Amino acid sequence: MRAERIRTIIYSVAGAILLSPLAIAGESVGRLQIDHSIIPEDLANNAILLREKALLDNLPVDIVESITTEVGPRRVGTEGDKRAIAWAQAKFEELGFDRVWTEEFSVERGWNRGKVTAEIVAPYPHNLVATALGYSVGTDGDLVGDIVEFATFDDLLAVPEGDSLKGKIAFVSFSMADYEPPPEESEFGGYGQGTRARGRGHVEAAKRGAEAIVIRSVGTDNNRTAHTGSGYGYEDGVKKIPAAALSAPDATLLQNMLSRGGPVTMKLNMTSEITGPVVSANVIGEITGREGSDEFLVLGAHLDSWDEGTGAVDDGAGVGAMMATAALIGQMDERPRRSIRVLLFGAEEIGLVGVQAYGKAHQEEINNHVLGAEVDSGGGRINTLTSGVGDDSVAVVHEMYKLIAPLGIEWSDANDATGDSDMGVLGRAGMPALGFNQNSNDYFMYHHTPNDTFDKIIPEDMRYLVAAYAPIFYLAAEMDIDFRK
Amino acid sequence: MRAERIRTIIYSVAGAILLSPLAIAGESVGRLQIDHSIIPEDLANNAILLREKALLDNLPVDIVESITTEVGPRRVGTEGDKRAIAWAQAKFEELGFDRVWTEEFSVERGWNRGKVTAEIVAPYPHNLVATALGYSVGTDGDLVGDIVEFATFDDLLAVPEGDSLKGKIAFVSFSMADYEPPPEESEFGGYGQGTRARGRGHVEAAKRGAEAIVIRSVGTDNNRTAHTGSGYGYEDGVKKIPAAALSAPDATLLQNMLSRGGPVTMKLNMTSEITGPVVSANVIGEITGREGSDEFLVLGAHLDSWDEGTGAVDDGAGVGAMMATAALIGQMDERPRRSIRVLLFGAEEIGLVGVQAYGKAHQEEINNHVLGAEVDSGGGRINTLTSGVGDDSVAVVHEMYKLIAPLGIEWSDANDATGDSDMGVLGRAGMPALGFNQNSNDYFMYHHTPNDTFDKIIPEDMRYLVAAYAPIFYLAAEMDIDFRK
Repeated sequence: MRAERIRTIIYSVAGAILLSPLAIAGESVGRLQIDHSIIPEDLANNAILLREKALLDNLPVDIVESITTEVGPRRVGTEGDKRAIAWAQAKFEELGFDRVWTEEFSVERGWNRGKVTAEIVAPYPHNLVATALGYSVGTDGDLVGDIVEFATFDDLLAVPEGDSLKGKIAFVSFSMADYEPPPEESEFGGYGQGTRARGRGHVEAAKRGAEAIVIRSVGTDNNRTAHTGSGYGYEDGVKKIPAAALSAPDATLLQNMLSRGGPVTMKLNMTSEITGPVVSANVIGEITGREGSDEFLVLGAHLDSWDEGTGAVDDGAGVGAMMATAALIGQMDERPRRSIRVLLFGAEEIGLVGVQAYGKAHQEEINNHVLGAEVDSGGGRINTLTSGVGDDSVAVVHEMYKLIAPLGIEWSDANDATGDSDMGVLGRAGMPALGFNQNSNDYFMYHHTPNDTFDKIIPEDMRYLVAAYAPIFYLAAEMDIDFRK
Repeated sequence: MRAERIRTIIYSVAGAILLSPLAIAGESVGRLQIDHSIIPEDLANNAILLREKALLDNLPVDIVESITTEVGPRRVGTEGDKRAIAWAQAKFEELGFDRVWTEEFSVERGWNRGKVTAEIVAPYPHNLVATALGYSVGTDGDLVGDIVEFATFDDLLAVPEGDSLKGKIAFVSFSMADYEPPPEESEFGGYGQGTRARGRGHVEAAKRGAEAIVIRSVGTDNNRTAHTGSGYGYEDGVKKIPAAALSAPDATLLQNMLSRGGPVTMKLNMTSEITGPVVSANVIGEITGREGSDEFLVLGAHLDSWDEGTGAVDDGAGVGAMMATAALIGQMDERPRRSIRVLLFGAEEIGLVGVQAYGKAHQEEINNHVLGAEVDSGGGRINTLTSGVGDDSVAVVHEMYKLIAPLGIEWSDANDATGDSDMGVLGRAGMPALGFNQNSNDYFMYHHTPNDTFDKIIPEDMRYLVAAYAPIFYLAAEMDIDFRK
């Protein structure tokens, strides 16, 4: 709260002193040298006004406050998921979207989280903070076993299959926070490394005879809140063993005990269980273009969340940013030429299930998806814009980019964006995409934990997000550009 | 872990390049201008060597690792408390202390924490993260009531006694993090404000008819981990109502719901209960002076902790710093002239119970306590040294101070220190004291929460702590100064 207040004050000063002088006259004809043979001057000016308006408009923050307060946790198939679907429809209506609809899909399996207790019983008794990984089976009462530590998932794979780990609980202690990625990996290569054990550890440990697997949470924080995630991934013919994540401090405690050399015995009790099919839905809101709905831009985020926090950074921030971006464009004097659709996908967290249903239902009209992007990396600011469009239109996107460069955004000419998260499914199917790469430091501290709550949202940063998206998507809606490769 | 590694590297560089050149020759005769008519040159040089050795010695960190790993939570009267007492005796022996003993005391009441569940049932269902405040009674099943918010404890007091809050759950939403203390209050005036409701809210709310009280956690963090504390404080003739603290994000959620104007209904279930008397002990380790034990310096910390974390910053850091300070002096070629006693008090958290027993048992020899200090503000660095001694000896303490000034410590000439925490009881009884004021930013984020774990200890800062205490207490042990007022 203190941080928020201070930032608001700083923001007001920044808004008044630093940003306004950049607006309109200075930029449209001045030092940013926008080529008006590519972006007509009136459109450029409108885009700048939109950007400046977004910087002063708390709407994206209010939307996150609304979904985290009025809905809260919304894991697929739960009551919270149903409330989220109803909330999203009502919010689109309230914000003046022209068309609002849901597209139902079914999910083969549901899951009850149940309760988890994890204790060290020897050599030193301790209660641990743990969370069941998604779609884990339960333990069927107390499960007691000695811990065998693996520094990485590869170290676990290196153990022979069979009964190497018979009677044991495997523990992958890989730390995303400590990981130093090799040069070919991105800054968040540690997330990719960590999710290998999170996603398949229970299968590979079971192949080696283990009774259960626990991993160090895949996150960068050192809070006593464990990161859940993954899910949905047992393999036929391999014993289904329980899988849990320990909070970072508890993983460190376990390592400190193991470093003393003697056996360390854990007792695990999990009542989670896989259930029958559940139904969920994608929710779509459209600002209908003045020339109709045949061509539309798509702004994506996911509506579902894991069930321990209230889904603020993952992905309330995306819902807030995308709804607010389209709503802001919808507040202009006239509707944009092309339509803008906000796609709020269901069941992202268990493996992009909602977008796959969407992709199937809309495969005939993939060419109508003019351009897409998704926010699913928290509420942090954009640091780099990358296009993923046809060679002919890269120069247009770069010209649009100049209008948001004053927000401190760099340009990357890799032209390899396919859209993040859900939107990547559509990008790989041929939809042109933009990559708005964000600062995700907070995201990897809080996402998938009880700590993913509204107070983690930094209002100024959320406003910056919308200020980056709105001008670009406004221009793409107005201009007659074919972004396809 | 990453932070630790980086700090270690920085420290090594600092140790090699920045600190060593200050040592010995430069300081003892150079620009710090130590008056050797007050502090003999050989003692000053020994003190500097001790300081430099402390900066390179990980012992205080290892001690915190040991107690947090091998003991963990150690609330008075629990099995953990018993383990801590045994651990402390063994650790003193292992570190070569000359005399080690315990002094038992009894505590009138014990307490079982039990379980707490807190939910919002309307208008929007949410599970909240809450913790029972110390020695709270339970709820006797589900307790359901509408929330009445008070921004401060004074606002609660302003409501008439009687049945103003009948059927309600009082909620004091005061935020330590947001508090801006008036000029006459210290930087942590917010802690004092917050602990008013934590310590007496259950009495004052009950006088006004409330069924229970919940407060926003008294802390500066925004993690989903609630701060317990206080305890032991019902009043005869006033109904005993349950008291709990919400994590900061949950308190914010509740406020956001209340800001919508309608009633907000909470369901609280707590199984905590007050029990019969328990026994605990203070544990004392002595480096016996070469002239015997008649005069001794006392280094204090508390051995007990709250029971949700492993008691790293509160007060493992104090235990580690004080044990290591005395042990380091004990490693010198000869024993110091006066004895040094490390007093590890029990039952501090429920109201300084252990030190009161100590004070009673040792009241005849309060004059033998030459000088005392306590670490109970976490493992952060010292920013200011204040004396609390007779006017004649202030100049001596100031001269000693010059030997630790290179650690970035300021001098305060208030001469009003009475010793922190437990040690204040002895200070107010006449024992001369020093106030080593620390950076407590981390402390107020983590203490009394599940998040108070070993990973929060910053090794370099712990070494700085010992480097500040050891030279001062070495000199006070060697020199024939009467610090009494």
